[in-house]
Amino acid sequence: MNWGERYQPFSGFNAVYVGKRSQLVTNMKSLRKIWFYLFSILIFGIILGSSSDSHAQTDVVLPETTQAILDNIWVLIAAILVIFMNAGFAMVESGFCREKNATNILAKNLIVFALATLAFWAVGYSLMFGLGNLFIGVGGFFLTGESATYGLDGMTLAIPTHFLFQAAFAGTAATIVSGAVAERVRFISFILFSIVLSGLIYPVVGHWAWGGGWLVQLGFIDFAGSTVVHSVGGWAALVGAIALGPRLGKYQGGAPRALPGHNMSTAMLGGFILWIGWFGFNPGSVLAATIQVPYVALTTNLSAAAAALVATLLSWFRFGRPDLSMSINGVLAGLVAITAGCANVAPWAAVVIGAIAGMIVVYSVALIDQMGIDDPVGALSVHLVCGVWGTLAVGVFDFDQAGLVQFITQFIGVIAVGLFTVIASIVGWYCLGLLVGLRVSNNQELAGLDMSEHGIEAYAGFLKVADAE
Amino acid sequence: MNWGERYQPFSGFNAVYVGKRSQLVTNMKSLRKIWFYLFSILIFGIILGSSSDSHAQTDVVLPETTQAILDNIWVLIAAILVIFMNAGFAMVESGFCREKNATNILAKNLIVFALATLAFWAVGYSLMFGLGNLFIGVGGFFLTGESATYGLDGMTLAIPTHFLFQAAFAGTAATIVSGAVAERVRFISFILFSIVLSGLIYPVVGHWAWGGGWLVQLGFIDFAGSTVVHSVGGWAALVGAIALGPRLGKYQGGAPRALPGHNMSTAMLGGFILWIGWFGFNPGSVLAATIQVPYVALTTNLSAAAAALVATLLSWFRFGRPDLSMSINGVLAGLVAITAGCANVAPWAAVVIGAIAGMIVVYSVALIDQMGIDDPVGALSVHLVCGVWGTLAVGVFDFDQAGLVQFITQFIGVIAVGLFTVIASIVGWYCLGLLVGLRVSNNQELAGLDMSEHGIEAYAGFLKVADAE
Amino acid sequence: MNWGERYQPFSGFNAVYVGKRSQLVTNMKSLRKIWFYLFSILIFGIILGSSSDSHAQTDVVLPETTQAILDNIWVLIAAILVIFMNAGFAMVESGFCREKNATNILAKNLIVFALATLAFWAVGYSLMFGLGNLFIGVGGFFLTGESATYGLDGMTLAIPTHFLFQAAFAGTAATIVSGAVAERVRFISFILFSIVLSGLIYPVVGHWAWGGGWLVQLGFIDFAGSTVVHSVGGWAALVGAIALGPRLGKYQGGAPRALPGHNMSTAMLGGFILWIGWFGFNPGSVLAATIQVPYVALTTNLSAAAAALVATLLSWFRFGRPDLSMSINGVLAGLVAITAGCANVAPWAAVVIGAIAGMIVVYSVALIDQMGIDDPVGALSVHLVCGVWGTLAVGVFDFDQAGLVQFITQFIGVIAVGLFTVIASIVGWYCLGLLVGLRVSNNQELAGLDMSEHGIEAYAGFLKVADAE
Repeated sequence: MNWGERYQPFSGFNAVYVGKRSQLVTNMKSLRKIWFYLFSILIFGIILGSSSDSHAQTDVVLPETTQAILDNIWVLIAAILVIFMNAGFAMVESGFCREKNATNILAKNLIVFALATLAFWAVGYSLMFGLGNLFIGVGGFFLTGESATYGLDGMTLAIPTHFLFQAAFAGTAATIVSGAVAERVRFISFILFSIVLSGLIYPVVGHWAWGGGWLVQLGFIDFAGSTVVHSVGGWAALVGAIALGPRLGKYQGGAPRALPGHNMSTAMLGGFILWIGWFGFNPGSVLAATIQVPYVALTTNLSAAAAALVATLLSWFRFGRPDLSMSINGVLAGLVAITAGCANVAPWAAVVIGAIAGMIVVYSVALIDQMGIDDPVGALSVHLVCGVWGTLAVGVFDFDQAGLVQFITQFIGVIAVGLFTVIASIVGWYCLGLLVGLRVSNNQELAGLDMSEHGIEAYAGFLKVADAE
Repeated sequence: MNWGERYQPFSGFNAVYVGKRSQLVTNMKSLRKIWFYLFSILIFGIILGSSSDSHAQTDVVLPETTQAILDNIWVLIAAILVIFMNAGFAMVESGFCREKNATNILAKNLIVFALATLAFWAVGYSLMFGLGNLFIGVGGFFLTGESATYGLDGMTLAIPTHFLFQAAFAGTAATIVSGAVAERVRFISFILFSIVLSGLIYPVVGHWAWGGGWLVQLGFIDFAGSTVVHSVGGWAALVGAIALGPRLGKYQGGAPRALPGHNMSTAMLGGFILWIGWFGFNPGSVLAATIQVPYVALTTNLSAAAAALVATLLSWFRFGRPDLSMSINGVLAGLVAITAGCANVAPWAAVVIGAIAGMIVVYSVALIDQMGIDDPVGALSVHLVCGVWGTLAVGVFDFDQAGLVQFITQFIGVIAVGLFTVIASIVGWYCLGLLVGLRVSNNQELAGLDMSEHGIEAYAGFLKVADAE
Repeated sequence: MNWGERYQPFSGFNAVYVGKRSQLVTNMKSLRKIWFYLFSILIFGIILGSSSDSHAQTDVVLPETTQAILDNIWVLIAAILVIFMNAGFAMVESGFCREKNATNILAKNLIVFALATLAFWAVGYSLMFGLGNLFIGVGGFFLTGESATYGLDGMTLAIPTHFLFQAAFAGTAATIVSGAVAERVRFISFILFSIVLSGLIYPVVGHWAWGGGWLVQLGFIDFAGSTVVHSVGGWAALVGAIALGPRLGKYQGGAPRALPGHNMSTAMLGGFILWIGWFGFNPGSVLAATIQVPYVALTTNLSAAAAALVATLLSWFRFGRPDLSMSINGVLAGLVAITAGCANVAPWAAVVIGAIAGMIVVYSVALIDQMGIDDPVGALSVHLVCGVWGTLAVGVFDFDQAGLVQFITQFIGVIAVGLFTVIASIVGWYCLGLLVGLRVSNNQELAGLDMSEHGIEAYAGFLKVADAE
């Protein structure tokens, strides 16, 4: 069953229709209008930013001790590793999809970090870390200074360091969506949704859990973002995948059909880039250079290794062959699952959390496929399902807090973030469906998005199977 | 018009002729001679190096405080990131070129860093940072010690740290040339030019701006090398591209024809590797671990993001489709442009500098194409044009120095560096044209440089479009 | 001559036979048994790990000074770089092999780091760094605390930091084997051998040289593991390559035939990833943040550059064309060779060591080919031969220790480690040959391991030369 059919205009067919209609109009008018708005926002931002004292940065009391500088250097390095994850996602997602859509996926993953950077700079960082109330941060757009938590709670990170690290996280949340909606989403609607997600939806959830909001007050623990980053991206991706409907040819007589990925070399490389990127993601979330940093790296690595092994063995066991794509998704499942508890669980618990994530991802991929939700790269299983698992696991394995109360708190966080993100995403995708259409036309999809949306092949000069048909 | 036709032997045709003639001779005699010279230089260097006290390093007073060690560790990490940029350039350049020349481009990009390391170790580092006069540094070849600026101006970097960081920069300057001369340059002439560029041309300019020379005395500001690295590489590439003439088939009836790249996956990966490599390039140029480091990373990222967005939107607007290769070049344009001013402009100014670079690169690629200069990967637009723009932008946006005087100073620097590099490059390429020939024969070019120069295919086992013809 | 034919069941033919027989059986019974054992071990480990005090980590006196934290942060970053080397090996090895076996090689390189992490966590780390005797460390499995050298000799590394760095090394030793046995080894037998190598063989040798064992007592110097890591991996790979016998079609009438690699783009990228990964491998082996770190990076880079240049020139000279695969192996040869002496030789000596390694690798690849040992990627020449060379070179070029006594000590270390590893590997491969069979069937090999072992193509959608035949 395709859940999306209930929601207008979320059914796959309708989206195609909207896509067709708007396709003509857009090339004439709405596309230009969108550019106009985007440019206006950019220029508005620049004016607003420049009207503030451009020396604001230097007026702030800056950390001067070697320890404080080490804190900033380490978190900057962690931010660089997290930014590198964009390349990892690009390689995994494009490698797992078909050759005719590779350029499109690569383009989405490149632009999404640029958009996340600018959207998070303009508004997201303030919504997330601005003072304000329990639900949203306010003030200090365009890094104008007063908004950040810098200096609070003994934090030694300068705003540039903290911003870069957090912007990289916002980009990660947005890039997760890319995989689940791959091979049929319109480029323009993905771009616009990314702005909404990284500039609005993610920062609000982030404020709840990390910016002094109601979830952290409640005692919710999500050290590096199993929920805040991964399941937020996952819920938004779920709504997008349902709204778009499955790819043409994915379901035949209701049964899911495998559409094999085109480049295991880049996919595996991407998996490894993500693995090392996570050594920025989780240990960087200490937000300082302490002896906790390598400990977090240790639990992160143990979980990834256990999940990779279990996912490989389980897929071997179930399907009679060790599936590389499942090994890669196993690694990612283990990394997502340990993200919430990486600082607060024992090494053996990290192995257990990872091993269970490795099992979950194998079953989840099959289940989601059966449910009629077409997720070309397994992003929902990795980021949403294992993100939820990792968040709940804190209630089971946390050094100090494990117990029923903590488990319920974790559960409340999962549900609240899920509800908010799903509702916001429905609104977002719905508006985009009306405004520009979510899905490319059938002809565009059959021809591949590379030629129909970008006008270039990913691999010019090579003969493809499709050429021979 | 092909500017090159004015200069003998710089015209494309003549170069081909020279290539043909020398092709026979070379395989017999001159090639062996060249190896003989290269080996001799190597052995000479080793003797010269070993004749010095091999313990020289340990005699120097070394930094011992934690802060000084942190300075060295950070700049080493930055150097590693910059060295990784070689892989990024290799992926972008090879991905943007045709499959039949991929091995050649990869081989050039691998060997060029080896050559730059050795040439910079032998002479370059001394010419650049040796004491000496306003125009050139002298003394202390092969890292024999007294030559470097270590200890001056409170610098805490040990020579190995400083050398590695600077050698990585020299390699970058040389690798820029690779893209512009791709798909028709002889491997041997590229190799020899790289030695000249990284061992002589770049260090001289570097001495002017960063080694105590006349440009820095004049007040010229180029924090991380928009001019010193990128436009030097760009000018040398311009002369090379003109000297070689366009690729066969590039111009038909005078109109430029698109020769599409063969691997967008690796090209996009390369773009991202360069993006994160630049977090070593610019923030590492602080040459110490201070709170300025993350600030430089912030402006760098904002500029890249703005440029990526604007280049994507503009190419979408102009050509009706968002061109991934333009998005990648947009990122690079923004990175090159902010390189001069990354430490001294406000965040909003970084966005403006990047946004303008994103516009420039789209128009510049088309313009250079129209001018009859064949730059297969857009290196001239990215590194030369945006390098110039970034250098001038310092005169407009610098916190403290912006103003007409600074703008004129920047302009003088751009012109002086351009003149010197162009003249030196003309001499260099001219001599190489006489000595070994610049360009492969027409047959070699049509067959592809992979088979004709290296004897291996980049992608053995795959069927190519050319096979089917 | 195929050395392996002497040993039953080490001959290629017999291995194939064993492979055939077990192929049927395995899919029915033995495979499930193996999973059962693996799961049991995992669960046993978890119980054993959890039965210990899960707060053990936090009870230990942890470093608190900024210098100590900097030590840990730097070594963690070095560990991340070394872990990234897994991606480098995967790209080099898969790129150098044929397209039909790419998925298999990628899968091996992904799972091997997961296995090494878990095996090293369970037993390897204790065997290597546990107190114990001159031959083996004992106690403190599953990081239960007392086992490590933490706090000894002024070491400031916390166990998580030290473990991650060392686990990454164990993974490297195991991954070296992958290349030499590529394109014909059974996936299951490679996996099981990797566990033995990283969990038992490597830790024992490591204890001898780095864990307080008899080699370090003797004065053996192997700063970062030319012998401990690279030649251990190389010896194990040698036994594996002999045991398996050459690939079908490799020798025709006794003469070796080139089987060209399928992806030079990823191979070259892998070479560069390894190059920068080595800046973690060697400088990280200082195991602290000192001013020695950039010095080690300097010698490492000089050796790599010299080796790359010499290998390129020599292959150009000998074969008339600069061979990219030889340039890449040249880089790796230089890196392996300098690994033993990187901290204790002068820069000029690093150039000499690298230059000689660059020569060695060219001749060694040809020689091993002639000897009938089929090493698809040149792993034996790079890791074993240059590992031995680098270890001996310490006796020639060491600042303080060079001399006959040191040379003999180095020689003893090389021989002892070689003997132990070869014997242990023979036992290991022999048992695996009996248990699951080493080699795939001829039909599987001809079809490619991707389809026959993993059921997926590496590059679905592309037409291959094999399709046209």
